[in-house]
Amino acid sequence: MDDELRRGLEGVVVDETTLSDVDGSAGRLVYRGYEIGDLAESASFEEVLYLLWHERLPTRDELADFRDALAADRALAPAVQDLLADLAEAGETPMAALRTAVSALSATAPSAGGEPQNAAETRERGRRIAAKMPTILAAYDRLRRGERPIPPDEEYGHAADFLRMLTGHPPDEVAADTFDMALTLHADHGFNASTFVAITVASTFADIYSAAVAGVGALSGPLHGGANQDGIEVLAEIDRAEESATEWARNRVEAGEHIPGWGHRVYEVTDPRAEILRERLGKLSAADGDRRWLEYTRGIETHLTGELSFLEKGIAPNVDFYSGAVYHKLGIPEDMYTPIFAMSRVGGWVGHVLEYQATNRLIRPRARYVGPADRAFVPIDQR
Amino acid sequence: MDDELRRGLEGVVVDETTLSDVDGSAGRLVYRGYEIGDLAESASFEEVLYLLWHERLPTRDELADFRDALAADRALAPAVQDLLADLAEAGETPMAALRTAVSALSATAPSAGGEPQNAAETRERGRRIAAKMPTILAAYDRLRRGERPIPPDEEYGHAADFLRMLTGHPPDEVAADTFDMALTLHADHGFNASTFVAITVASTFADIYSAAVAGVGALSGPLHGGANQDGIEVLAEIDRAEESATEWARNRVEAGEHIPGWGHRVYEVTDPRAEILRERLGKLSAADGDRRWLEYTRGIETHLTGELSFLEKGIAPNVDFYSGAVYHKLGIPEDMYTPIFAMSRVGGWVGHVLEYQATNRLIRPRARYVGPADRAFVPIDQR
Repeated sequence: MDDELRRGLEGVVVDETTLSDVDGSAGRLVYRGYEIGDLAESASFEEVLYLLWHERLPTRDELADFRDALAADRALAPAVQDLLADLAEAGETPMAALRTAVSALSATAPSAGGEPQNAAETRERGRRIAAKMPTILAAYDRLRRGERPIPPDEEYGHAADFLRMLTGHPPDEVAADTFDMALTLHADHGFNASTFVAITVASTFADIYSAAVAGVGALSGPLHGGANQDGIEVLAEIDRAEESATEWARNRVEAGEHIPGWGHRVYEVTDPRAEILRERLGKLSAADGDRRWLEYTRGIETHLTGELSFLEKGIAPNVDFYSGAVYHKLGIPEDMYTPIFAMSRVGGWVGHVLEYQATNRLIRPRARYVGPADRAFVPIDQR
Repeated sequence: MDDELRRGLEGVVVDETTLSDVDGSAGRLVYRGYEIGDLAESASFEEVLYLLWHERLPTRDELADFRDALAADRALAPAVQDLLADLAEAGETPMAALRTAVSALSATAPSAGGEPQNAAETRERGRRIAAKMPTILAAYDRLRRGERPIPPDEEYGHAADFLRMLTGHPPDEVAADTFDMALTLHADHGFNASTFVAITVASTFADIYSAAVAGVGALSGPLHGGANQDGIEVLAEIDRAEESATEWARNRVEAGEHIPGWGHRVYEVTDPRAEILRERLGKLSAADGDRRWLEYTRGIETHLTGELSFLEKGIAPNVDFYSGAVYHKLGIPEDMYTPIFAMSRVGGWVGHVLEYQATNRLIRPRARYVGPADRAFVPIDQR
């Protein structure tokens, strides 16, 4: 046992996993060995959830059953709807509302009577949480705008029904496919902070509700989930200023400022998720004829990768550079970007909790005490 | 950077702290250098919270202001009371109800407009959470029994007012002092699982509500907070069986079974918290004339430490061995033992978050991928 201080646990290997692998030097992300690009292109988000929770891709029948079960679980109990209305009236943030509503779900959880660490029960409860998160978020967004929530419709897929409940009309195919892809792209990413928090909570054999609620809390932090709003703010700034994106990027770099959505702690060459969303942004722009956001991203990209050789320096656009523009075109309000990240990442939280609890070990690091030693207690009148 | 697998992060030093030190080989626990025994005996729980959050003991005026602020924050908003009534009606567990109610508190949080990582705001919000937890728990226990919650009364101290709101009558001095001591004893204990979870959530600069909610979730796990119900179950078993406690202990040890409340992962010689509660159990028993629980614990202790020389083997009674009997005599229902642990440990959560965020570093360990490599995607019809 060494006594080295491991701040941030950087580089500390806390467990093995078969869920996902991030290979920064190759610019690759795989879920259970499958390339993220293949999954985004060819598998639905429901299929990806199945893969993360059952260790393999489903057959057609298994997927049909899984989709049905997920869709059937989408509806909210009246008490949760009332809770959301109260939170909306109080002006709560969407992430905090999601945290409270997910926590409230356990009160109406059907129990198989198993132990909290029972894998079948965890999987079923995890599915229930994942199913209801889109309904919670869409309802919350409508309630705070003074509109009535739209109930779920089992005929729609997971991604499409969220857009329908949020905007009030069924999405076209490009929009539904794009959002489905976005959910797949964000579903897992190694031991990021929220996943590690969910695992640590579950390592006490607390149930999946406690783990997921903790995950939502961690994701709400600006150093974790919060960054995915920055990209769209840049584009909106360019749009308002009627500035050329190239000009904007030049000024920003010359002023020594960071360009949001560029560079990644892990990916050194390219973020594979960014490439997929770049293409989808093109498709969405062709479909609705509004090419502004696409052009802004292209303008920035041309300047940074051309004149400034960012790619050669290991600085590539990351997933957040395009996700904001994509979500904007899907009609999703900016402060819902982090909540929909949670809607997706819950797939990873549940998958990792299932994997971790199978060979569980309570997570409990040490702290080195550097405070005062042997202080004599001083009665209050002598202080 | 080594690649060694650190399961459970056992022995990994993740940070330095000045809050508390657990010296297992000496059987000592200190908060900021003060012996836990001195604090339990001479300081109120409010004073200990101040010590944990402000790094030093308060003057008389500072303590008076702090107590007033804490007492003034005890009342619950109507929406939180309604939420508790809904949860009670659904038969939610007290720990899950606490998790949901604490999460809901952020909706009505007065904001100083600071960043979430603003220390003054975190301290104020932490105080608000700590202040309301007793009210939440007492109200919840009454609601599920079909009784009306009793509103807080600022005239009472933190510990005494909880007992009053729970039982419906003001506690006598021995009971109030004992519960105040129990809160002090459980307020901090290094980087236990719930504290580490709270810190990890806060390391994303998520706010103290998210950190505390995650802490409650972690504490709900049977491997962490859950153990403090085991002690009383043993005593109740002896009581029902009308068995001699010595006989019970002998049979249990001969059958090769573990005795709940004996032995501790860290304390090798003695758990200083256990000694304090042993003495309080004696005082409570003398006060109400019912010496059964005291005699049961003594019977077990006599057998294990006498005939079986447990102490020489490094197995001493831990805090849970006496806490159950003490709480029972204070009129606290068994499934509230873990929730009152949270009521106390929130002191440590808030203190550690304040300390950690001052020199923050995002906590993000690694996982080693051991899943399949380079799998070709198989279309659903070919699976």
